Amino acid sequence: GSIQPEPKAKHNTQTYTSYSPIGFLSPAAERLRHILREEDEPTPTLFTEMDTLQHEGGEMEWKESARWVKFEEKVEEGGERWSKPHVSTLSLHSLFELRTCLQTGCILLDLEGYSLPQIVDDIIEKQVQEGLITPEIREKISFVLLRKHRHQTKKPIHRSLADIGKSSPSSECPLSYLSHSQDAEASNVLIGEVDFLDKPFVAFVRLAQAATLGGLTEVPVPTRFLFVLLGPNGKTKSYNEIGRAMATLMVDDLFSDVAYKARDREDLIAGIDEFLDEVIVLPPGEWDPKIRIEPPKKLPSSVFSLNELGQPNGNAGGGAASAEGEDLPAPHELGEELKFTGRFCGGLWLDIKRKVPGFLSDFYEGFHIQSVSAVLFIYLGCITNAITFGGLLGDATDNYQGVMESFLGTALAGVVFCLFGGQPLIILTGQPIRLWIGLHSCLQCLILVATDASYIIKYMTRFTEEGFSSLISFIFISDALKKMMSIFNYYPINRDFKPDYITSYRCDPGARALSSLLFNFSALDWNQLSKKECLSFGGSLVGKSCKYVPDLAMLSFILFFGTYSMTISLKKFKASRYFPTKCRTLLLISDFAIFMSIMTFVGLDLFMGLKTPKLIVPTEFKPTRPDRGWIVMPFGKNPWWMCLASFAPALLVTILIFMDQQITAVIVNRKENKLKKGCGYHLDLFWVGILMAVCSFMGLPWYVAATVISIAHIDSLKMESESSAPGEQPQFLGVREQRLTGILVFVLTGVSVFLAPVLQYIPMPVLYGVFLYMGVASLHGIQFWERMKLFLMPAKHQPDFVFLRHVPLRRVHLFTLVQITCLAVLWILKSTVAAIIFPVMILGLMVVRKTLDLIFSQHDLAWLDDILPDKDKKKKEDEKKKKEKKKAKSEEHNNGDEENQPTKFILDSGYLPLQNIHYCSEVTYRF
Amino acid sequence: GSIQPEPKAKHNTQTYTSYSPIGFLSPAAERLRHILREEDEPTPTLFTEMDTLQHEGGEMEWKESARWVKFEEKVEEGGERWSKPHVSTLSLHSLFELRTCLQTGCILLDLEGYSLPQIVDDIIEKQVQEGLITPEIREKISFVLLRKHRHQTKKPIHRSLADIGKSSPSSECPLSYLSHSQDAEASNVLIGEVDFLDKPFVAFVRLAQAATLGGLTEVPVPTRFLFVLLGPNGKTKSYNEIGRAMATLMVDDLFSDVAYKARDREDLIAGIDEFLDEVIVLPPGEWDPKIRIEPPKKLPSSVFSLNELGQPNGNAGGGAASAEGEDLPAPHELGEELKFTGRFCGGLWLDIKRKVPGFLSDFYEGFHIQSVSAVLFIYLGCITNAITFGGLLGDATDNYQGVMESFLGTALAGVVFCLFGGQPLIILTGQPIRLWIGLHSCLQCLILVATDASYIIKYMTRFTEEGFSSLISFIFISDALKKMMSIFNYYPINRDFKPDYITSYRCDPGARALSSLLFNFSALDWNQLSKKECLSFGGSLVGKSCKYVPDLAMLSFILFFGTYSMTISLKKFKASRYFPTKCRTLLLISDFAIFMSIMTFVGLDLFMGLKTPKLIVPTEFKPTRPDRGWIVMPFGKNPWWMCLASFAPALLVTILIFMDQQITAVIVNRKENKLKKGCGYHLDLFWVGILMAVCSFMGLPWYVAATVISIAHIDSLKMESESSAPGEQPQFLGVREQRLTGILVFVLTGVSVFLAPVLQYIPMPVLYGVFLYMGVASLHGIQFWERMKLFLMPAKHQPDFVFLRHVPLRRVHLFTLVQITCLAVLWILKSTVAAIIFPVMILGLMVVRKTLDLIFSQHDLAWLDDILPDKDKKKKEDEKKKKEKKKAKSEEHNNGDEENQPTKFILDSGYLPLQNIHYCSEVTYRF
Repeated sequence: GSIQPEPKAKHNTQTYTSYSPIGFLSPAAERLRHILREEDEPTPTLFTEMDTLQHEGGEMEWKESARWVKFEEKVEEGGERWSKPHVSTLSLHSLFELRTCLQTGCILLDLEGYSLPQIVDDIIEKQVQEGLITPEIREKISFVLLRKHRHQTKKPIHRSLADIGKSSPSSECPLSYLSHSQDAEASNVLIGEVDFLDKPFVAFVRLAQAATLGGLTEVPVPTRFLFVLLGPNGKTKSYNEIGRAMATLMVDDLFSDVAYKARDREDLIAGIDEFLDEVIVLPPGEWDPKIRIEPPKKLPSSVFSLNELGQPNGNAGGGAASAEGEDLPAPHELGEELKFTGRFCGGLWLDIKRKVPGFLSDFYEGFHIQSVSAVLFIYLGCITNAITFGGLLGDATDNYQGVMESFLGTALAGVVFCLFGGQPLIILTGQPIRLWIGLHSCLQCLILVATDASYIIKYMTRFTEEGFSSLISFIFISDALKKMMSIFNYYPINRDFKPDYITSYRCDPGARALSSLLFNFSALDWNQLSKKECLSFGGSLVGKSCKYVPDLAMLSFILFFGTYSMTISLKKFKASRYFPTKCRTLLLISDFAIFMSIMTFVGLDLFMGLKTPKLIVPTEFKPTRPDRGWIVMPFGKNPWWMCLASFAPALLVTILIFMDQQITAVIVNRKENKLKKGCGYHLDLFWVGILMAVCSFMGLPWYVAATVISIAHIDSLKMESESSAPGEQPQFLGVREQRLTGILVFVLTGVSVFLAPVLQYIPMPVLYGVFLYMGVASLHGIQFWERMKLFLMPAKHQPDFVFLRHVPLRRVHLFTLVQITCLAVLWILKSTVAAIIFPVMILGLMVVRKTLDLIFSQHDLAWLDDILPDKDKKKKEDEKKKKEKKKAKSEEHNNGDEENQPTKFILDSGYLPLQNIHYCSEVTYRF
Repeated sequence: GSIQPEPKAKHNTQTYTSYSPIGFLSPAAERLRHILREEDEPTPTLFTEMDTLQHEGGEMEWKESARWVKFEEKVEEGGERWSKPHVSTLSLHSLFELRTCLQTGCILLDLEGYSLPQIVDDIIEKQVQEGLITPEIREKISFVLLRKHRHQTKKPIHRSLADIGKSSPSSECPLSYLSHSQDAEASNVLIGEVDFLDKPFVAFVRLAQAATLGGLTEVPVPTRFLFVLLGPNGKTKSYNEIGRAMATLMVDDLFSDVAYKARDREDLIAGIDEFLDEVIVLPPGEWDPKIRIEPPKKLPSSVFSLNELGQPNGNAGGGAASAEGEDLPAPHELGEELKFTGRFCGGLWLDIKRKVPGFLSDFYEGFHIQSVSAVLFIYLGCITNAITFGGLLGDATDNYQGVMESFLGTALAGVVFCLFGGQPLIILTGQPIRLWIGLHSCLQCLILVATDASYIIKYMTRFTEEGFSSLISFIFISDALKKMMSIFNYYPINRDFKPDYITSYRCDPGARALSSLLFNFSALDWNQLSKKECLSFGGSLVGKSCKYVPDLAMLSFILFFGTYSMTISLKKFKASRYFPTKCRTLLLISDFAIFMSIMTFVGLDLFMGLKTPKLIVPTEFKPTRPDRGWIVMPFGKNPWWMCLASFAPALLVTILIFMDQQITAVIVNRKENKLKKGCGYHLDLFWVGILMAVCSFMGLPWYVAATVISIAHIDSLKMESESSAPGEQPQFLGVREQRLTGILVFVLTGVSVFLAPVLQYIPMPVLYGVFLYMGVASLHGIQFWERMKLFLMPAKHQPDFVFLRHVPLRRVHLFTLVQITCLAVLWILKSTVAAIIFPVMILGLMVVRKTLDLIFSQHDLAWLDDILPDKDKKKKEDEKKKKEKKKAKSEEHNNGDEENQPTKFILDSGYLPLQNIHYCSEVTYRF
């Protein structure tokens, strides 16, 4: 009994033939080119189930042993459960055996079949006709093929605690995924050994119409394909491997297409040959076949093109020239929003046109449970910001602007901006003001808007962006720590506190007290007075520790550090294995991480009952300084020329606001955030300018985008795909783009004046912990920060960053050092008297970046940063000319010799890749 | 220009021929069987370097592009660095092309060659002879092949900070590994394209003697093999892939053997065919070839046997029957140490014979830097233990035994046990005593020793072991927390403390003070008195907060939690990427984690200067109670019959000590600890018994193995391999088995009496933190604990534990629940008056385990626990009979049908696997 490979090793002659000139396709590829047309509709998603024949007692039945949606899931025999989805590792052997099976077996394409018995009859009839089986065993085969099917679907009786409460079986069953891909069909693989056969019985069936063949498939999806392999006893293992190979082929994008469109046996064989041609081989000595390979994070694009057909996948191992070409960093594109229109208010007009259509959806798309958490998180950030900022402001302006103004301004500016701004995901924060400077700045901003000046943002590369946002993050972190330290100073730990001497601390009447005798204070019992009374009656405190408040510093530290580390831990918990994902992601942990931490430590503080410093919000709606109203008169105490002289400082303010606003906008609008509704740099700036004037008149602070909180806002609104094939990584889908959360945050901020009774329970150290978290979290994922960490890692432990593959480590370090130096200079400027020229220095960052062009090659900069647009354009044109020359040359050459010309990839980011694919498609890499 | 595959696809006919009966080998395997003989010496380790020809300007040179020791390391062109070692992913295409190359190219085996020019001449001569090239291009080829070689060895100018201070280039260069495998040789692969060829020039050379061909190889290792592929322009990528395939083959264990022993071209081809037969295939749609696959944690055994030759690796994907056979849990073997000898003191005698030879090495093997850290760690654990235990003991015995006795006893018993005990890695801890009970127990222990009673430990399975050690861990954790809470009670947080009223806390002379007037206390200024003075003069304190010590509770908590979490973090840091591994592992972080944490928080405590509770050790060497000497008289105050009546309680003590001692010994001697010097259960018990009597006479506590600290001791002495091929995981080599660390710990404990001035700076909360860490750390890696966590995980997130593949989840949960119940009962017993029968209940665990045989199948128990020995023996015999029957049957069957008979693997763990390999070797799985 054996499967005789008839045209021995024919596949080899077909596929691995010798080298031939341009345009050559292997016969297999040539064949497939005829049946696969790109204009065709995509074929349905295939679900494959493999059932094996079990003999138990005298009974036979088909038992599900594995299934494939995209990856393989095996039934763990003993464990009675599904294995984790894994990449199917096949043996080359079984693939060749499968090929032989299809060459010798019976192939029925487009069979009209509506029930399993009828289909089985047709298969057997065909086999008898072709003389593959003798008519005597007809009945036996039919009997075997019609045995009952048992599936691994029944719920286990004893479920894990974590499973309880799950409403749908989504996590264990591929049905939810299949029902999303609307026209799913099934292919069934039946493998078994029987004693009455002396050679294998093989059949491959494609039905004309997918049909539900009662009980054949685990999920209610109609069957389109059926592969049967019955063989003589004793080779279960081989048969199983062939079955797995067939099933794996059926879920392969290319082969499943071929299977749907094959005209005959040869087409199917050609499909296998193409599959073999693309296959990735692991040497046996370097890999243990028993390891189940986890599905990769990213799959190669599932869309194959006809042009790629017949090109063996030479990139295995990475490093071939075309692979490097694909690896080229995505070009620095800020989109057409920043085009210089050249018309008056041209950009603003385009922004408005772009934003109006989505205005309604900006509201209803905000109704989601995630928004609640986002609002709470950002609200707490904003209010902490408003209060600490208000406190500082009050000190600086002699209370002309204080906490009340800060609240009101935040609420007003925030609501207006989120309602009408170009990018409502941006959160505003305050800056102190003077009326005339504000008016000048407003005017200057409007001029910038009218002249499309925001287009210069194009010159802001990752260098500037990351430098600026790191700086802001560091400021956040340092502020949080500073404020925490100030608590330590205010409520120090008293190392000299001698509990033993507590009895000797007392109020001493002193000299003044003597005089008080005149005022008839003689009746006073000085021993009974509290500290306050003692002082008010002119006594003095005896004993060093009198002013000391115990436990506060320690508790504050515990609250501060606890809030921070609990938030970090809860955020990490999202990635852990405990509790069902749904539960973890949606409701409990991740989104509410900050809220839960705050609640926990507010609770702890309440429980301790110590007088930690608490959040205090104003309770009455009136200007902080009682001697002013809500409107500031434009011509007040200042001389008239001040109105004009304000122009100069206003310019600095304008630069700062412009930079602050637009860099934040660039960061929020980053391509990796996958925003779909477009942005509106001009519109943003317009409203910032208008609000500036309004605020100036009302004596409120000015408002501009807050980098860290805006990033936190984006982070708290991220969406991930819910239904993916088992084993597939959930994809980041984008951000909930809407105005609702922003508006709610600022409405709440305004309303906070009435929330004082609740808010007063929140200790300040908890809020500082939130600040610290925000600062640290916004450093996350910044390449600059990753590069800094490289300094501490030995080369062999460094992560496999793509820029490290292309830029020498010393250049990477040099680039990082330049950035560190720039930030250090900015930091020093910020903290000294030179703070006034700080905004200009941020502009300076862009100049530094420009000079980096002289030190670093464009190749290095493309990987570490982005190419500046002008360069880009110029080089592109150069490149075009070069390429034309090259194309001519390449026609003599037959094949890309890109590897020898690294400069080719350097200069034309963004343009070449497309060109390159086209170019490659004309060439084959065949031997 | 092309490589024409001459005997087209011949490999296929050779390898994938049809099914044939027992004993069949493919022609390729048949061939290899002739040249590979198992009695041969192993061939040298091969280092492979691939150089590609670079054209720069008009110059040509060979540039290293990748290297292989076991895994591939590529030169990152742009990054000028080595990539991480990764599994070579090849395309099937390139392997077939390579096969064609070897079929058509020129093969020179055992060439006498001592210099590159001579070898090149020989190659070209041969090619000309065979008519493969025309004589005209002789010079050109020779010129190309003799170009300079440039290697990726030069150190980068700007190194990472972390690299500085590294003495050897070991981490980046495979030399250190190669120099360890003593007879390493190199194979060189040269790949290039030139313009003067119109078809490829291929040569495979094996030198008769390995020779250093100046500058050809990066490392100073002589070259044995040379593969040259020069081809016409335009196909660099194809050529590179062929070169990678060749290099990967050269480092394959089987192929490199073939290459060393091949007699002719056909042998090499057969080698490739065998390689292809074993190859693992990944479907292109499920894997991105650009992903570099990290080397697996565990490689398949590199020793291949001739018997396995020609058997395709059907286990890919896991799940074939024979794979399951290998997966069977290692049988529960405790070694011959626990054999019942049947002779008087037979076991003890064997123990002594076993331990004597290693006695000397037990000392000199202790001299290692790691020992220092281990001693410090365990010393701190012991001393904390001794102090807290001593304190409790003092309370319980009215100071007849106190801290001093605890110290002395620990030191004495520890030193003696570590000097003479069977397993010196065990650390002893105290139990309170009574003289006569001690003498009885000693006698009972000696009887147990003399009768080899320890052999019943065989019935102690993982169930009992893990139950007991979890219990001890939980006790550790709960003790640490309880002690911490007691600090909170002792120094409470004063929620009512009103700093404002500090002036009103004072000393009130009260009624007594009035009477004190008689004693001329009238001069006393009550206001000036401290708390103590006030009370001593009979005054009373006024004000609620007088007794309150501020900040202590908070600081204690910070110290406690800080020590714990810093230790945990530092331990984790070992696995991080920062700083060179050497630095991290040996000196800085991991081993000293606990020491560094203790120092940090002792420092913090010192800095704070608060009066936290400190470690206080006795400073004078005398019994705690001054009215007794160091020797206890056997016939003292008690009536004579007490001497006899002590027998009954002594029995309970003996059981407890026996269980405690032997379970700990079993845990320490676990197979996964890879101890080599053998253990001595009888000898251990002998010394425990003797020490019991000695301690009893001296009025010291008794000493018995401390589970948690012994595990910590083992953990702190673990060794890992230092030299492994790039990418290979370091292997756990075993534990530094020696007596030195133990002895030092206990000598230090004894000397601690004189260390009091230093030790008094250590705050108790820090030590409690260490306790907590020890308890938590000893839970790590316990399967019971892992199973408990499963309750909280949804099925699809559960880790891929091997027992989950074989046992249904509900059975796993049931088993865990039984264990939890047992522990809960034990816990309750321990904390109530029933504590006295606690030792008997631990024996009860073994009874529970026995009854589990009724509830669970032996299959499930084999995975979750171990099979009890009797069962094992009986079944083995049954199995033997069965197997003989089966063997007869299998000869008709030709192939294993194990999959259908799962019971076969269940019952004969430990015996069948060997038998099985033999059995398999007679059968082939070929189609």
